[in-house]
Amino acid sequence: MSASELVRGKVPTGVAGLDEMLGGGFPTGHVVLVTGLPGTGKTCLGLQFLLAGCARGEKGVFLSLEEDAPQLLESARQFHWPVDDAVAKGLLKVVRLDPRETRQSLHRVQGELGHELTALGAKRIVVDSVSLLNMLSDDEPSRRATLFALAGACRETGATTVLTAEADPRHPEVSRDGLSEYVADGVVVLGYSTASDGHRVGLSLRILKMRRTAHARTVQPYSIGPSGLLVDAKAIDLGAA
Amino acid sequence: MSASELVRGKVPTGVAGLDEMLGGGFPTGHVVLVTGLPGTGKTCLGLQFLLAGCARGEKGVFLSLEEDAPQLLESARQFHWPVDDAVAKGLLKVVRLDPRETRQSLHRVQGELGHELTALGAKRIVVDSVSLLNMLSDDEPSRRATLFALAGACRETGATTVLTAEADPRHPEVSRDGLSEYVADGVVVLGYSTASDGHRVGLSLRILKMRRTAHARTVQPYSIGPSGLLVDAKAIDLGAA
Amino acid sequence: MSASELVRGKVPTGVAGLDEMLGGGFPTGHVVLVTGLPGTGKTCLGLQFLLAGCARGEKGVFLSLEEDAPQLLESARQFHWPVDDAVAKGLLKVVRLDPRETRQSLHRVQGELGHELTALGAKRIVVDSVSLLNMLSDDEPSRRATLFALAGACRETGATTVLTAEADPRHPEVSRDGLSEYVADGVVVLGYSTASDGHRVGLSLRILKMRRTAHARTVQPYSIGPSGLLVDAKAIDLGAA
Amino acid sequence: MSASELVRGKVPTGVAGLDEMLGGGFPTGHVVLVTGLPGTGKTCLGLQFLLAGCARGEKGVFLSLEEDAPQLLESARQFHWPVDDAVAKGLLKVVRLDPRETRQSLHRVQGELGHELTALGAKRIVVDSVSLLNMLSDDEPSRRATLFALAGACRETGATTVLTAEADPRHPEVSRDGLSEYVADGVVVLGYSTASDGHRVGLSLRILKMRRTAHARTVQPYSIGPSGLLVDAKAIDLGAA
Amino acid sequence: MSASELVRGKVPTGVAGLDEMLGGGFPTGHVVLVTGLPGTGKTCLGLQFLLAGCARGEKGVFLSLEEDAPQLLESARQFHWPVDDAVAKGLLKVVRLDPRETRQSLHRVQGELGHELTALGAKRIVVDSVSLLNMLSDDEPSRRATLFALAGACRETGATTVLTAEADPRHPEVSRDGLSEYVADGVVVLGYSTASDGHRVGLSLRILKMRRTAHARTVQPYSIGPSGLLVDAKAIDLGAA
Amino acid sequence: MSASELVRGKVPTGVAGLDEMLGGGFPTGHVVLVTGLPGTGKTCLGLQFLLAGCARGEKGVFLSLEEDAPQLLESARQFHWPVDDAVAKGLLKVVRLDPRETRQSLHRVQGELGHELTALGAKRIVVDSVSLLNMLSDDEPSRRATLFALAGACRETGATTVLTAEADPRHPEVSRDGLSEYVADGVVVLGYSTASDGHRVGLSLRILKMRRTAHARTVQPYSIGPSGLLVDAKAIDLGAA
Repeated sequence: MSASELVRGKVPTGVAGLDEMLGGGFPTGHVVLVTGLPGTGKTCLGLQFLLAGCARGEKGVFLSLEEDAPQLLESARQFHWPVDDAVAKGLLKVVRLDPRETRQSLHRVQGELGHELTALGAKRIVVDSVSLLNMLSDDEPSRRATLFALAGACRETGATTVLTAEADPRHPEVSRDGLSEYVADGVVVLGYSTASDGHRVGLSLRILKMRRTAHARTVQPYSIGPSGLLVDAKAIDLGAA
Repeated sequence: MSASELVRGKVPTGVAGLDEMLGGGFPTGHVVLVTGLPGTGKTCLGLQFLLAGCARGEKGVFLSLEEDAPQLLESARQFHWPVDDAVAKGLLKVVRLDPRETRQSLHRVQGELGHELTALGAKRIVVDSVSLLNMLSDDEPSRRATLFALAGACRETGATTVLTAEADPRHPEVSRDGLSEYVADGVVVLGYSTASDGHRVGLSLRILKMRRTAHARTVQPYSIGPSGLLVDAKAIDLGAA
Repeated sequence: MSASELVRGKVPTGVAGLDEMLGGGFPTGHVVLVTGLPGTGKTCLGLQFLLAGCARGEKGVFLSLEEDAPQLLESARQFHWPVDDAVAKGLLKVVRLDPRETRQSLHRVQGELGHELTALGAKRIVVDSVSLLNMLSDDEPSRRATLFALAGACRETGATTVLTAEADPRHPEVSRDGLSEYVADGVVVLGYSTASDGHRVGLSLRILKMRRTAHARTVQPYSIGPSGLLVDAKAIDLGAA
Repeated sequence: MSASELVRGKVPTGVAGLDEMLGGGFPTGHVVLVTGLPGTGKTCLGLQFLLAGCARGEKGVFLSLEEDAPQLLESARQFHWPVDDAVAKGLLKVVRLDPRETRQSLHRVQGELGHELTALGAKRIVVDSVSLLNMLSDDEPSRRATLFALAGACRETGATTVLTAEADPRHPEVSRDGLSEYVADGVVVLGYSTASDGHRVGLSLRILKMRRTAHARTVQPYSIGPSGLLVDAKAIDLGAA
Repeated sequence: MSASELVRGKVPTGVAGLDEMLGGGFPTGHVVLVTGLPGTGKTCLGLQFLLAGCARGEKGVFLSLEEDAPQLLESARQFHWPVDDAVAKGLLKVVRLDPRETRQSLHRVQGELGHELTALGAKRIVVDSVSLLNMLSDDEPSRRATLFALAGACRETGATTVLTAEADPRHPEVSRDGLSEYVADGVVVLGYSTASDGHRVGLSLRILKMRRTAHARTVQPYSIGPSGLLVDAKAIDLGAA
Repeated sequence: MSASELVRGKVPTGVAGLDEMLGGGFPTGHVVLVTGLPGTGKTCLGLQFLLAGCARGEKGVFLSLEEDAPQLLESARQFHWPVDDAVAKGLLKVVRLDPRETRQSLHRVQGELGHELTALGAKRIVVDSVSLLNMLSDDEPSRRATLFALAGACRETGATTVLTAEADPRHPEVSRDGLSEYVADGVVVLGYSTASDGHRVGLSLRILKMRRTAHARTVQPYSIGPSGLLVDAKAIDLGAA
């Protein structure tokens, strides 16, 4: 099976080398978990993913639990991404779920959020981060119910979804809550690697899992540069799903 | 005792090299736990196991807690497996247990599921995954009761059963719940190994335990290719049970 | 003190090299814990121990929490052990404690089991496994009470007892419950060792503790072959108790 | 994107080499977490940050949970920093939150503190330490609410904020409470490194995360000398945000 | 300070090399914790300590939580120690605290045990093991109260006391309960060391702490031979308390 | 800043090399935590610190939770320190807080202890150990309140205080309770190091933190000899606070 056979039904991620690793992008309709330690660029990847959609005329929604909308948009402007234009055209919408308003935020996720997302007609959804969402619940069953409700709501809209999650510092390939992996069709891990000079800390990315598609099973270096994340895709070769 | 003596009463797994490691397949009627980290191909192995049965005219049931039926069937189609044909002929049935409907799903597992499975006349059963099943219960005794009920129901039908389970990231040869090993007659571990180039991540498989049969005690590389899992069975030699 | 001085009052284990390590066998009346990870042959060792007794005309009881009697007997038949003959002659009895019948099983262990064992006149007892027995209790005090009751009941019959237990994956020389060591006069650890080819996984055995007898303090390789466990007893030298 | 483009909107930290690593300083309005093991100079960095502001005529507030005001000011005098002058001119204010007055301190953080900070007109805020603040709460939800309230109050004043936190001894790049990272726009880690003589213990610093700005991704040695922290900024090169 | 200056007020332990390490023995009236993994000879050391006293006409009491008196005495007979003679002369008394009679055993330790011990006129006391004693309590405060009561009762009789404790498998120099060290004047650690052939497992001993006396700070090999524990005391040199 | 500039306001510790590492001693009025594993000499250091004060006519108080006064004084006599003389002159007072009288001891620490200490006019205070003090409380908030009350009471007397604490065996540079570091102005860690012969266990000391003073950041060997602790201060060089 050649990688090209599978390219139908792929959503380009906006991250060049990552698309190559995935044989074209995330499979349409997937819920993809992006997990990583602080500073590995999870929020940046989320914005980049949405703006890649906007550039193709696809609507995107950013569910933000960590930052307010103005700060988030300012982050995008740093990369000279046409974020204000996208907002003006109705292609990008930031929905703020304030963790200080615990009850309302939880209620929204478990209730009307699905309808809101469908009404918006989003083709791409980012939730940043499910780790903070999980913190809103005080017990495991409620945490699980919220997460399942959120993933279900996203999936039912037919959009392709990126969930960001903090990595567990003891096992950086696993999310801190240990739950998010269960609702995801794919897992991308952003991590650190020590550079050969023992001084500079490098970034590297790995696709741990991606259902129904061939994907690379390599650890690829990436950088966060003036245009966002960039995966060094040299020597990528694809296996199958 | 030569390995061939034990081949009576074996169920071919559909995974070529794995059958060699097992001296022909899983012993008939066994409950086999397949444990692994995300992306190691547990769901794929489960589908492959059922379709190997369909090809021999054996009925199979896939109890899915992770994915809806359409998505699961789509996964099988990616491998060009005749899954639609199998469903049409009544050889393959996907039973969805939705983790969002906790109470009903638990009730079904502890109640009528045994009768359903028997009525279906399945020779092969897959439960994907017991990790998610365990999450439905909020306390250890209920988790245990559910797991024992499920394994008992499968075993009493006389079918051969594969239970998939997430591995514990701290000890990848142990299931995350630490319980599933107790109900299993066999344990197959799917894991990662670092390739010699330090860059490509390889997959490797090991049979940790398999009651009442000789089996290989080696760590064998495998890949997930266009026809599903394929174990590199070079240099396999069998011990005894 | 020569090893031979202590051979009086020893019960041959049925495992050739292990007997050498013990200077003849388990001391009569001991409660011996056999702990190991899945697939190291704990159940097999238990059956082998009982059948070695049957061969000498000694009655044995197998308290099975993990498997039903037919499956257990089938395991023994795989090794061509005369298990059906032993059952027919009343030398071997399998007592099933079903973990699905939690209350009854616990009640039996804490109540009439001692009388049952005495009435049976067993010289050898195997409990497979105390890990599963411990799971039946929901709190530590009840777990402890059950374990003390079981060990006490076995000890009072005057029989020599083998308790099997799952090893803690973090510390494979310790049982998973961390309690069973306290009721045992001896501890035998079954473990894995990586073979020199880094590919084949070997088995090795160690006597951690054995009261009132000299025993080897070495790590010995063993295999599970057509006649059951076989310890490679080359270079064994005995210390004292 | 050259580093200089981003220098607008930066607040010099008062720590020479750290400013270079950040392309000029902390982004204005950021909440920056400074995490480290005991003795790595967290309080010192906080004081240095405020006094660098005072030198430019910017008001600063030090919320002290660990030390009383006189002791804190004495610490600053040790470095010959003009702390008494700054207090006299109204440029520096120490607010003591006594952990022995748990209820009042918590009440203040969740209540009027925001208004107090705004009224003070502070451009720079230091909270030393959020670890001790977290200890005032007895359960996770209250801990989270307090932390979110504090970070929100600081952020709403428009000031640039430094939160100090004890590092987790098991994972020195993570805060002890595991929560503080969630409210921070940036994370600076102060740590130990063993010197080449195996005897002298060195100090080294790393910027783990800093939103909306390019920053170095290197591990830089630093010392605590007569003028406070000094980062050895040789060989620093900046990536992007 | 020469070691000989401190020999006044020492109780010979009965273990030759250990006495050398201690400059003569345990200080009179000390409560000494002997901690070790299973099979390191803790019970044996306890018996040896008491019989060394009997040989000098000193009364000793063995508080046994692990074994019944007949089994314990049999252990001593294996070493050809004149244990029956000692019992007959009233020099040795075994007091059984049955862990199956939780309430009575706890009651006795917290109540009349002190008077019993004083009435017996014991100069040496062994408690085997405090780990099992701790298991009798279901919560930390009760565990602590029992342990303090026991140590207090022993100390007030003026006798020299040995408490045995299971080592924590994760940190073999610490007792499993993590409490016993707090009531002890001295700590002796019995441990395993891998022999140079990587096959034979050796035993080694270390005095971690011993108040008010000079003691060796070395790791010494020991064996359990026909006369009990024997420490290889070559190259011992004493520091001070 | 030369080390000598800071010598004003220092309290000599009585441990020669440690004073050099601190540029003269502990800063006056500091609360210093001395943490270490069992047998590293914490109690000894505490006594030595107080007797160094007595030699200068400074009153000292030893709050003992671990040992009774007679035993403690006997420990000091072993080092030929003039402890009886100091007690007779009213320069040294041992206050016993018996952990068996939990309620009274806790009540005293949280209540009148501050007045007692002030009335005594102590210039030096030792609390041995806060680990045992922490054990008296059954929950975290009470533990914290007690510790803050104790440290506050000591600090308000103006005396210089040494708190001893058991090290966490998993992270020997951190106290077992993980709280004590928060109330301390300085932390001194006493630890083990393996000697080059792999047999003798050495002792080494490190100043982890010391507010408002320059201190060495090296790991220095020390011994416990006939005059108490002695730090080998060769090659010490001081940084700044």
